[in-house]
Amino acid sequence: MSERIWTAGLIVIGDEILSGRTHDKNIAQVAAWLQVQGIRLDEVRVVADVQERIVEAVDALRARNDYLFTTGGIGPTHDDITVDAVAAALGVPVVVHPEARAILERYYADKPGGLTQDRLRMARVPEGADLIPNRMSGAPGIKIGNVMLMAGVPHITAGMLDALTGTLEGGAPLLSETMGCWAAESEVASILREVERAHEQCQIGSYPFFREGKVGANFVIRSTDADALAACARDLREALSRAGHETTAGGI
Amino acid sequence: MSERIWTAGLIVIGDEILSGRTHDKNIAQVAAWLQVQGIRLDEVRVVADVQERIVEAVDALRARNDYLFTTGGIGPTHDDITVDAVAAALGVPVVVHPEARAILERYYADKPGGLTQDRLRMARVPEGADLIPNRMSGAPGIKIGNVMLMAGVPHITAGMLDALTGTLEGGAPLLSETMGCWAAESEVASILREVERAHEQCQIGSYPFFREGKVGANFVIRSTDADALAACARDLREALSRAGHETTAGGI
Repeated sequence: MSERIWTAGLIVIGDEILSGRTHDKNIAQVAAWLQVQGIRLDEVRVVADVQERIVEAVDALRARNDYLFTTGGIGPTHDDITVDAVAAALGVPVVVHPEARAILERYYADKPGGLTQDRLRMARVPEGADLIPNRMSGAPGIKIGNVMLMAGVPHITAGMLDALTGTLEGGAPLLSETMGCWAAESEVASILREVERAHEQCQIGSYPFFREGKVGANFVIRSTDADALAACARDLREALSRAGHETTAGGI
Repeated sequence: MSERIWTAGLIVIGDEILSGRTHDKNIAQVAAWLQVQGIRLDEVRVVADVQERIVEAVDALRARNDYLFTTGGIGPTHDDITVDAVAAALGVPVVVHPEARAILERYYADKPGGLTQDRLRMARVPEGADLIPNRMSGAPGIKIGNVMLMAGVPHITAGMLDALTGTLEGGAPLLSETMGCWAAESEVASILREVERAHEQCQIGSYPFFREGKVGANFVIRSTDADALAACARDLREALSRAGHETTAGGI
């Protein structure tokens, strides 16, 4: 019984990532969150704050995935153009969302300057969009069809993901089991290949490391089927043990 | 006098990034290194360990950039398929590089098992490739034309970047100046927009943060022209000051 696989694309928008100034934290948190929703992250693109480049990425990743997420570019400044770019890609106009406007009015009521024109930019959405609640600061995220527009600041994004938890249809979550051993990856490559070949419902990833002057590797077995995962993990553990490599459950 | 702009694409290869298990560190380090070489990082794609997806990304990013970098998938295990995918994209066969083989023979001479078939996988290159030295472990990186294949493990990648320093033709390095202030981004958005508009050789990025219970933002001005950069920074500092926002040089 082969299950439908749900996939998502992610577009990280921002010159600050491409310049190396800011270390992206959203790829990892969106990826980990999607796993729990039973949605596989299929591809990530990091693109500049340039409308045509965002539109191109939206078109490409939306066509091949069930969901598309973006992070970044939904703030109040001139370089925040994600809403305009996504609206252009979807062929809809940009409108002010009444509820977003009301949220911002409340949020800025007691703040210097109140709801300025610049702040009101954060109430602009592609026509037909719903809002994603933002517990951390005023401006909400945006959901239009299968496209979710989220903040660039990681802890705000985290709150938006939390608000979306359980609201998107997904498949069986991808399960994983990790084991590690103090062996060079190259010593055990043939074992990994053979065990993976014998367990077609599973994938084995190998992640080498160098610590305390010694080489080792962690192996992550992934499957949507718990029994298949357990059988594959058992076979891998035994095969490594026969070759003289004792493993540590959960990884090293 | 408009200068030629040199650009690069980066493909991060690896299911471990897309699953959220591993936090990518290569995007930031490649991005920062490229800045110093006078090469602009134009786009990043994170793709799975699937040959057709790697080939697609190589085709797309090679066509529009002067250079293409990949990280990940050049180790000894079955999920290391970057060499095969890049060779397929370039339309050349995969061959064993004699110098890479010699490096691996020396490296594994005193290690258990010696140079096994699996380890010899790391001497495979697209035909016509040169090697990128690897100071950290045995297996070298690979340079074929304008495509650089590097390790996934960040400290090994760092060594390979170091070996490439100064060997790639680039333009004037992008210069930047950062200043921060304790103001909500939304309070100063119009100032940023107007100053940027008045300085067409410069771009201003705005990076909000929330710390110690207060909001603030750092502004990064970028230009390849030092005089233009200094003039823009001065105007921005003065405009913010007139609006009651004193700035901290270098950012907060």
